[in-house]
Amino acid sequence: MAQSKASAQAPHPLTLIPGPVEFTDEVLAAMATPSQSHVSPQFVEVYGDALALLRQLFINTDKRAQTFAIAGAGTLGWDFVAANLIEPGEDALVLHTGYFADSFAECIATYGGKPTQLKAPIGDVLTLDAVESALKQKKFKIVTITHVDTSTGVLSDIKSIAALVRAVSPETLVIVDGVCSVGVEEIRFDDWDLDLVLTAPQKAIGVPAGLSIFIASGRALDVFRARKAPPTSYYASFAKWLPVMQNYEAKKPSYFSTPPVQNIHALLASLKQILAVPLADRFAAHARMSNRIKSTIANYGLKQVAVREGYQANGMTAVYLPEGVALPDLLPRIAKRGIVLAGGLHKEIATKYFRIGHMGVSVTDEDRDDFDKALAAIKDSLAEAGYTI
Amino acid sequence: MAQSKASAQAPHPLTLIPGPVEFTDEVLAAMATPSQSHVSPQFVEVYGDALALLRQLFINTDKRAQTFAIAGAGTLGWDFVAANLIEPGEDALVLHTGYFADSFAECIATYGGKPTQLKAPIGDVLTLDAVESALKQKKFKIVTITHVDTSTGVLSDIKSIAALVRAVSPETLVIVDGVCSVGVEEIRFDDWDLDLVLTAPQKAIGVPAGLSIFIASGRALDVFRARKAPPTSYYASFAKWLPVMQNYEAKKPSYFSTPPVQNIHALLASLKQILAVPLADRFAAHARMSNRIKSTIANYGLKQVAVREGYQANGMTAVYLPEGVALPDLLPRIAKRGIVLAGGLHKEIATKYFRIGHMGVSVTDEDRDDFDKALAAIKDSLAEAGYTI
Repeated sequence: MAQSKASAQAPHPLTLIPGPVEFTDEVLAAMATPSQSHVSPQFVEVYGDALALLRQLFINTDKRAQTFAIAGAGTLGWDFVAANLIEPGEDALVLHTGYFADSFAECIATYGGKPTQLKAPIGDVLTLDAVESALKQKKFKIVTITHVDTSTGVLSDIKSIAALVRAVSPETLVIVDGVCSVGVEEIRFDDWDLDLVLTAPQKAIGVPAGLSIFIASGRALDVFRARKAPPTSYYASFAKWLPVMQNYEAKKPSYFSTPPVQNIHALLASLKQILAVPLADRFAAHARMSNRIKSTIANYGLKQVAVREGYQANGMTAVYLPEGVALPDLLPRIAKRGIVLAGGLHKEIATKYFRIGHMGVSVTDEDRDDFDKALAAIKDSLAEAGYTI
Repeated sequence: MAQSKASAQAPHPLTLIPGPVEFTDEVLAAMATPSQSHVSPQFVEVYGDALALLRQLFINTDKRAQTFAIAGAGTLGWDFVAANLIEPGEDALVLHTGYFADSFAECIATYGGKPTQLKAPIGDVLTLDAVESALKQKKFKIVTITHVDTSTGVLSDIKSIAALVRAVSPETLVIVDGVCSVGVEEIRFDDWDLDLVLTAPQKAIGVPAGLSIFIASGRALDVFRARKAPPTSYYASFAKWLPVMQNYEAKKPSYFSTPPVQNIHALLASLKQILAVPLADRFAAHARMSNRIKSTIANYGLKQVAVREGYQANGMTAVYLPEGVALPDLLPRIAKRGIVLAGGLHKEIATKYFRIGHMGVSVTDEDRDDFDKALAAIKDSLAEAGYTI
């Protein structure tokens, strides 16, 4: 069984998919924290610290913004947006670079918003001109951007799009789906004047799945406060959670729904590890690993789903299968070598490609050789499947 | 620091509140399971087994029903009910025995349902006559019952209420909030003809918070399938999760939103421990401990919030403070002795009582002396606070 040199964990297949990723020993130990009351001074301290460190991860110092970490999933972040920042009948512009925009649009429609999708060709990004002309067609309450679409590995330029939105339609809230980007791609929440970035723990944050994590700007919270009608979700309501988050960050216990104590301990453990080195170094390490994987894949003669240089994710790579090799020919052979990769997800091309996740400790811990093993496993398995590099 | 004799966990205060409870070493070890893909054969097996064992916990064999375990919280179970089993404009009868009925009613209203609350006096239950006459006033799509209200410790007779609903209003769905009852109070889902029982892991199931757990009957799922309009939540949608749960239970991978892999491992670990002994023995052990705690509290001269014998929870006790002793006089003194108890929650009497949770391993493991310590700590702290028993 493949196993990293640097881990004390029991031997297990290396999970190198676009989330969940491999976790550090310290994060897993925090998941096993003995029981604590959710309103105990010990846990209030942990929750408050985690919310404060999340600000650093989002490069946020403006206290009118608020970080949130709530039991749930990345998906639940869409409900928070759709139920709090847009009201029934209002318009949303959904920038589409893959599978996840379809889902976000469906979520917005579920709560009565009116999504308009602007779609890029598979594997490509939208031009700023296309976004600008869409923005001018009507007044959009929100625009949503998938920073990294996990189904394609396409990286959107959220900084430029946010600046464009602010210039063309200043009141429109800029919502970033950062599920596969927070912790691996640069995001400067305050500087880039973003309104909400949502994410999940099991990707570049390096914490087991089970949380919905996001940050909302002062502008977004003001839009929420000015709603004509209450939020259209009970569990995913800013009205319920905003005071709870504010209280915990101020180190005061608060209650709406029992928080996932162990998952929050794990979040704090990982944030401490992440923030122990400058974020710029973390992003650079991921970029180096991404370049290495992408160039090796190219040397194997394989093509990426994400076609445009400079718009390819640094935390994952989506790779078209070579002619004559199907997913069931490849992934089980790689799995036999102790490496778990992912199949396709974008429904129009799902059987034609596979995905490698390169985020978190497998990338940042230089004592680990996870991707030496993974790239060798891909090469050897392709050969076994009859593809000659 | 107080610590159970039987645990290998680091010394920590004993959490004896109405959830989260103390966890077994095996459950905490499962929380630290190394990373697994959410669609790996290993995890599919674990998720499927957990869903199947949940059926045993609910004493369910009718396969038209379906168990669910989803990242979230007990609270999210209310959203699942309100967004899937009732449509905007339809009526709900909410039987009120404490704080949590107010919240459930608010959740129903959030999604457009029309809740009618039938309120018992604080600490008491509703008579069947009162429920019957309310049921006859209009056609209710659902009736909700809090099995154990965690704010009062009142235990409702869900078997008799369910039978009454079925007799008087056969099409009305019977919804049980079992957050503080599943795993400690008898619930016979099929025999009692219930439609949905929702719960959370951190109480008598003995698993860290972070999941919404429920079972829905074939009748409830048919009502869902016959909706005139789609569910009014995206994340809390049966349309999204029902096929996922069915697939995992059939040991097939499925995807809507990444499940909390480690929390599901912990759920399976705890269900295996719970179901290793007959449920009747488990319920009896909790009843014995509850009787012991309630009679000791009475010997201390203290009164319970739940006033009616036979309608008092077996997993928690809500205790009025004696004259002249306030919560800040008592709980910190108990905490100094290494025992964490909870304050009041029912808003009308919140400062006047405290709560003891007696669920899970602290009750069932005969090698543990958690409640010897807790009862002694209460007695000694009362004395220190100036109350003579």
